[in-house]
Amino acid sequence: MAELGENLAQTIAKAAKAAFEASQLIASSERVTALQEIRKELDAAKDAILAANRIDLQVLAAQKEVDAGRMSGSLLKRLDLTKGDKWDSMLQGVTDVAELPDPTGVVSYANELDDGLELYRVSCPIGVLLVIFEARPEVVVNIAALAIKSGNAVILKGGKESNETSRLLSHAIQTALSKTAIPSTYIQTIQTRAEVSALLSLDKYIDLVIPRGSNALVSNIQNNTRIPVMGHADGLCSVYIDALADVKKAVRVAVDSKVQTDYPAACNAAETLILHESVLSTIWPEVAKTLLAADVKLLCDEPSLAALSALSPALPNHSSHVEPATPNAYSTEHLSLTLSVKTLPSLGAAIQWINAHSSHHTESIVTEDERAASTFCRGVDSAGTFVNASTRFADGFRYGFGTEVGISTGRIHARGPVGLEGLVTYKYMMRSKGAQGHVVGEFGVGEGKRQYKHKKFAASSVPF
Amino acid sequence: MAELGENLAQTIAKAAKAAFEASQLIASSERVTALQEIRKELDAAKDAILAANRIDLQVLAAQKEVDAGRMSGSLLKRLDLTKGDKWDSMLQGVTDVAELPDPTGVVSYANELDDGLELYRVSCPIGVLLVIFEARPEVVVNIAALAIKSGNAVILKGGKESNETSRLLSHAIQTALSKTAIPSTYIQTIQTRAEVSALLSLDKYIDLVIPRGSNALVSNIQNNTRIPVMGHADGLCSVYIDALADVKKAVRVAVDSKVQTDYPAACNAAETLILHESVLSTIWPEVAKTLLAADVKLLCDEPSLAALSALSPALPNHSSHVEPATPNAYSTEHLSLTLSVKTLPSLGAAIQWINAHSSHHTESIVTEDERAASTFCRGVDSAGTFVNASTRFADGFRYGFGTEVGISTGRIHARGPVGLEGLVTYKYMMRSKGAQGHVVGEFGVGEGKRQYKHKKFAASSVPF
Repeated sequence: MAELGENLAQTIAKAAKAAFEASQLIASSERVTALQEIRKELDAAKDAILAANRIDLQVLAAQKEVDAGRMSGSLLKRLDLTKGDKWDSMLQGVTDVAELPDPTGVVSYANELDDGLELYRVSCPIGVLLVIFEARPEVVVNIAALAIKSGNAVILKGGKESNETSRLLSHAIQTALSKTAIPSTYIQTIQTRAEVSALLSLDKYIDLVIPRGSNALVSNIQNNTRIPVMGHADGLCSVYIDALADVKKAVRVAVDSKVQTDYPAACNAAETLILHESVLSTIWPEVAKTLLAADVKLLCDEPSLAALSALSPALPNHSSHVEPATPNAYSTEHLSLTLSVKTLPSLGAAIQWINAHSSHHTESIVTEDERAASTFCRGVDSAGTFVNASTRFADGFRYGFGTEVGISTGRIHARGPVGLEGLVTYKYMMRSKGAQGHVVGEFGVGEGKRQYKHKKFAASSVPF
Repeated sequence: MAELGENLAQTIAKAAKAAFEASQLIASSERVTALQEIRKELDAAKDAILAANRIDLQVLAAQKEVDAGRMSGSLLKRLDLTKGDKWDSMLQGVTDVAELPDPTGVVSYANELDDGLELYRVSCPIGVLLVIFEARPEVVVNIAALAIKSGNAVILKGGKESNETSRLLSHAIQTALSKTAIPSTYIQTIQTRAEVSALLSLDKYIDLVIPRGSNALVSNIQNNTRIPVMGHADGLCSVYIDALADVKKAVRVAVDSKVQTDYPAACNAAETLILHESVLSTIWPEVAKTLLAADVKLLCDEPSLAALSALSPALPNHSSHVEPATPNAYSTEHLSLTLSVKTLPSLGAAIQWINAHSSHHTESIVTEDERAASTFCRGVDSAGTFVNASTRFADGFRYGFGTEVGISTGRIHARGPVGLEGLVTYKYMMRSKGAQGHVVGEFGVGEGKRQYKHKKFAASSVPF
């Protein structure tokens, strides 16, 4: 069984690498054509795909009763492709990605090393991606679109709850690709964990793993492969209310960072509110009142707890929603309407505390003090450092990337929300136009030796 | 013992992270001052450092006799700091790095998301680097200079052969730093493998590992850490002589790629020569003659072997230097004046063969055919793809980067020769200048909701 998984994984990985290599010689306009074909094919297969989605939903609903409510309704909601405008926006997403600028072929460095010897650094795809995700089946289509646009082959593994839907979605994608110059093995889907395990050891064929899902999923992958992993295990974001904060901004930013969009499990939601001690009796009560009224549970340290106790009659939900924080409150991603509160004596202490406790995702300061803002943005070592703005802005669409592959809390390659640009790397192309070609032995010190010219020049594409 | 190593590693790693975080609030001009101080301090400590270097050399020389010549004279040469202009060029290197443009604080994306809401993507250091290298003690100084210039803290582990020299070099560096605003724990040195092992598990504090050395060293590190690793295990480069190659260019490029600078173990040296079958009786004999005259040993496949046999009287060293290739010749980094030769029927076959056998470092085509050049450069999936130029150009200095950290055969973060730019990442800074700050809840569809403006603008630095 394990061996079967390994053989299958080898076959899939080799086919993906071969498809990637073959695609390097296909014009990038073909990739846009392929995306248009995919949209058409999905449209044509809509009834069959939604029927498969209903089967997945029924299985999950039956499973849910067996598990006596262990699975939440939100899982059913995320799985359901007929919900709202999900289907249409999935199709529109394919068109949107097709219309984004081509991230490949962009020259970021051009240097004339010698007369007739030109060096170009040009963006190109990474190779073969392995993307592992949970629940939402439309991710198959999103990721396939991003991979094709950026020129990468991809192997996809969705959650087992959406197996039937994912199978039909990938079938439609492969059917569409078979009508184009892109090999149909460019996008492949696998269904078992055994295959994932086997693929994680194939660093000869797979170049990047992108896990999207729970902390446990991401950590498990990071611990079991030498292939680079891009993503985030935790989203422990924080909002710091500075001594010189404006009370209205503090209330708005704190509440939006936690409560916005009814989805407190989002990775860009704040898990911790940090208070400068001088705002305990001024701004903090106003912020707490609004958070409590929005049904947020507050896990407070002693000073912030004491400040609220004094005002308890005026605070909604005080008895049910305010509790002392346990020591691990500050390292927990609550994934719910729960917020840990910490009081600190200075901006410097807040920066140190954030660097030690946050997951380096996104942190925001509320302040009217330009110097404090600058110090916070430079001193806090996170992918996003914001001033008077909600942490929920940390998102590829909101950043203006059109769409996102995921959010990275790593520092290597891509950091923060990752758009198409995060799916490319670069290579160096060099051409000698010299009558005898160019060799290194001609350069150096001594008689008759040449010196490097190293003259940068502007180039928008490689001319050969 | 192992536990002691772990405790020490924890202390060192925490100190490095703290030094990195503290340095984020220090002006980058201070980093230039620190480099100037380091040069002064090294100059002042020159006699002591060279005395330590003599001790290392004596120990190694004694060891060498014990090992009955197992260690090569080249190791002694690489260890010797008094050799040629090594000392002076080490000091000049510090000044050169100080004078390079600051790689941090560079804005690569600026977008006005809404009136008064500005987003900046700005380059910043990665954090804490762990650099592991062999033999050459001056690497301590090179890497320290690059780390300081780019704003990263670094932990260094040199080869045990240069322990005494490295210890004094780092002492001088720390003494210099203690006179500046940069913490002296910014550059730390460790001496044992147990410490390295312990550090490789501390992904909370260490952000990037850069191994420089043998294939075994690099592979071992890649297999034993979840921290990202930047470097190359193999340098299996190749030169492909196309059907439409110019004979003079073919000879020059093939010979320079293999023989140049008397250092055939360099990672950018060619290990394989690929021949289009149509050049077997035309260009190949000329190339072989020059290679054999330069003392290169040729491991040939059947067609290339047969082509030479017919001409053997006219070829120097034919009987001693020409052999049939074994199957593993094409996956071996010879590290010597040995070259494997492979004959293939087409450009397409050559591209496929390179993608399957090379280490994706650097490959060169010799051709007068523009289309073949373009196909080769796009189809070959390596960090460098060259036309009529020696593979030995793959080098940070030759590329115009001033200096290099190493060469990466990975595709993530940095690829090919890595200069200072490879030691930075970026973060997103966002500032709301709105009267009430900015929250996500104001945006969306429906009455009174705002739409994102997403207006890119030019910015050379973050204005706050």
